[in-house]
Amino acid sequence: MTQDVQLPAGFSAAGITCGIKASGRPDLSVFVSGTNACAAGVFTTNRVFGAPVAVSRSRVPSKRIRAVVVNSGNSNACTGQPGIRDAERMTAETAAALGAEPDQVLVCSTGVIGVPLPMDVISAGLPKVVAACGESASHLHDAATGMMTTDTFPKLVSLDREVAGGAIRISGVAKGAAMIAPNMATMLSVIMTDAVLSPEQCDQLLRHAVDRSFNCISVDGHMSTSDTVLLLANGASGISLYESDLHRLQDSLDEVCRKLATDIIRDAEGADHFITIRVEGLADRAAAYRIAREVADSALVKTAITGADPNWGRIVSAAGYAGVAFDPSLLSLQINGTTVYQNGVPAEFDEAAVSAEMKKNRNVELLLDFSDGDADSEPVTFWTSDLTAEYVRLNSEYTT
Amino acid sequence: MTQDVQLPAGFSAAGITCGIKASGRPDLSVFVSGTNACAAGVFTTNRVFGAPVAVSRSRVPSKRIRAVVVNSGNSNACTGQPGIRDAERMTAETAAALGAEPDQVLVCSTGVIGVPLPMDVISAGLPKVVAACGESASHLHDAATGMMTTDTFPKLVSLDREVAGGAIRISGVAKGAAMIAPNMATMLSVIMTDAVLSPEQCDQLLRHAVDRSFNCISVDGHMSTSDTVLLLANGASGISLYESDLHRLQDSLDEVCRKLATDIIRDAEGADHFITIRVEGLADRAAAYRIAREVADSALVKTAITGADPNWGRIVSAAGYAGVAFDPSLLSLQINGTTVYQNGVPAEFDEAAVSAEMKKNRNVELLLDFSDGDADSEPVTFWTSDLTAEYVRLNSEYTT
Repeated sequence: MTQDVQLPAGFSAAGITCGIKASGRPDLSVFVSGTNACAAGVFTTNRVFGAPVAVSRSRVPSKRIRAVVVNSGNSNACTGQPGIRDAERMTAETAAALGAEPDQVLVCSTGVIGVPLPMDVISAGLPKVVAACGESASHLHDAATGMMTTDTFPKLVSLDREVAGGAIRISGVAKGAAMIAPNMATMLSVIMTDAVLSPEQCDQLLRHAVDRSFNCISVDGHMSTSDTVLLLANGASGISLYESDLHRLQDSLDEVCRKLATDIIRDAEGADHFITIRVEGLADRAAAYRIAREVADSALVKTAITGADPNWGRIVSAAGYAGVAFDPSLLSLQINGTTVYQNGVPAEFDEAAVSAEMKKNRNVELLLDFSDGDADSEPVTFWTSDLTAEYVRLNSEYTT
Repeated sequence: MTQDVQLPAGFSAAGITCGIKASGRPDLSVFVSGTNACAAGVFTTNRVFGAPVAVSRSRVPSKRIRAVVVNSGNSNACTGQPGIRDAERMTAETAAALGAEPDQVLVCSTGVIGVPLPMDVISAGLPKVVAACGESASHLHDAATGMMTTDTFPKLVSLDREVAGGAIRISGVAKGAAMIAPNMATMLSVIMTDAVLSPEQCDQLLRHAVDRSFNCISVDGHMSTSDTVLLLANGASGISLYESDLHRLQDSLDEVCRKLATDIIRDAEGADHFITIRVEGLADRAAAYRIAREVADSALVKTAITGADPNWGRIVSAAGYAGVAFDPSLLSLQINGTTVYQNGVPAEFDEAAVSAEMKKNRNVELLLDFSDGDADSEPVTFWTSDLTAEYVRLNSEYTT
């Protein structure tokens, strides 16, 4: 199915094995725009961040971008000034192969941290990956595969949308939060569109979408030093957008990001359940977000779901310590549509039936309704995975 | 050893089986002062809190207290207004048995949540537990045992201190963060002293000590609806304290709280390692605390330690997302005294030796030095446990 995911007009891509990974798996990808593209980026807010984050962050949204180069197998994080020089060299050599300026390329790296990049093999690989570029679905698939670390499947999606003047496309790839080797979760995503957008529009559209997708997923609450989401818009469709089209484009970008973000959770290490947490009825979206995230990151909530236990006490108590003021006597909770807690007191429900449903259906939906907010406020949806003995095994068995 | 822990002058205690727990284990305890005592309390800040928290919180530090009654097996949390009436009734009936006023008793409950207290068996038990009170070490041991849920050992400590006028004693008990049955961690502690203190002094001394002990431990970051620490000072020593004695008393109370808090971590469910996290060199203690807590609650840090892996990347990246501004190029990290990361770059060290030490020694000490703060600032010490497959098993196997 992912074989059919197409690139937008004017973009090409490739993924190859250049020799960073000892396994011989693909480890170098590029995403190229034939013409200058506007670009926006959202980056990790970790104080300890990788060199590629420093380099790419300095170039968006100001520079006109021709390509994004991504390597897996080494994150180039915690590598000091030499790491910055290596990241800059990766962009300059990619640009040279494309005939672009050095600062017209963005860079992402994911993999082991604290180890210098093997620049000899990367330098040799860059002209090759640029030469391998093509516009077909399989080229995009290869590029998505070259970003993978311990992901079990490549993550890619594209959407076609009709707007007033014709058709535009948004396509995106991501690699996920797989944490065992080589040390740490990193989430990377590159999204491309042929829509005509200004750098400011790119930036605004991307932040809105990321706030409702990549910022609403958590496997274990551990923020990587390298997380990056990039959006490139090259205008190759030639279609100018009206204000109403921009709303449609936002909806489409939201959908693309949500698909990629939830795919990351579906591929979370050792996970048995895919958990959707919805928080409604609070006037303040930021408050609802804090509660959703606290519930998602609670080891007790996660292990209860692993055990197919409709343990509402763990869920409402996690909501209670999120640092948000609310009236506990107005709080209600549904698990997979069954009310288990209503207006601050336990509800009568068939525990065996709810538990059986959680065992059978690997998707679990929690709905927390605080019924004390503005009915018009936007609910928050957050996605997470459960916590299994397999997760512990995977993350404790890797030893240096 | 704990058999020798003595009560301070003027206090008595007892613990009995009254029949709340189906297992027949002790489930009802009292701590009694022969005369009116000043009292202070520190309670859960969870928005969803148990009825005993509501009742006890309203009585400190204003009321003169004669006793604390504690039951295990049922937390009387999420039980609405009937729960408040049950908690008040427990204090009134204990007071009646003592010949005190109803509001001179504090109450704590721990155990299953969302289930009404079995008030018939508790009512029958209250006169019995009061009648069973005595001043011996074994009475205190029984009372500590009656508070236990899935704790594997009772937690108690006492300290004798010489002050200008003679000797005073501080004795404390606690029950810990054992989360499997009946649903949730609850930490309860009752501390007693025969020192002469005002209610304000009690309050101030207790907050200082709790901030450096019970607020510096975490098993899984999940805050209970019932956490309570109480300090009673009955003045039975008759010794007035000078200002300098007050500092000694603070040190002693800090030590008592630290001992009880770290015992809770030593008894954490399914834990293999006892982890001490020390954060130094930040000007702001609150910032240092946030970082220590973020590192302690990281599932990736915990699982690395479970696997005896000196994985500094997980530790420094957890520090990086604590929301604290710092210069990453000044950060250094020691694991069990070995420098593994220095001034923002990986240090050369013998990974096999550090890993072997982590396998052999179940105590692991992490020292994060940010070297950009005021040298006089107080370092933060935080204690936690690792995350094992056994923890997941214990917390996912309990099903309703």
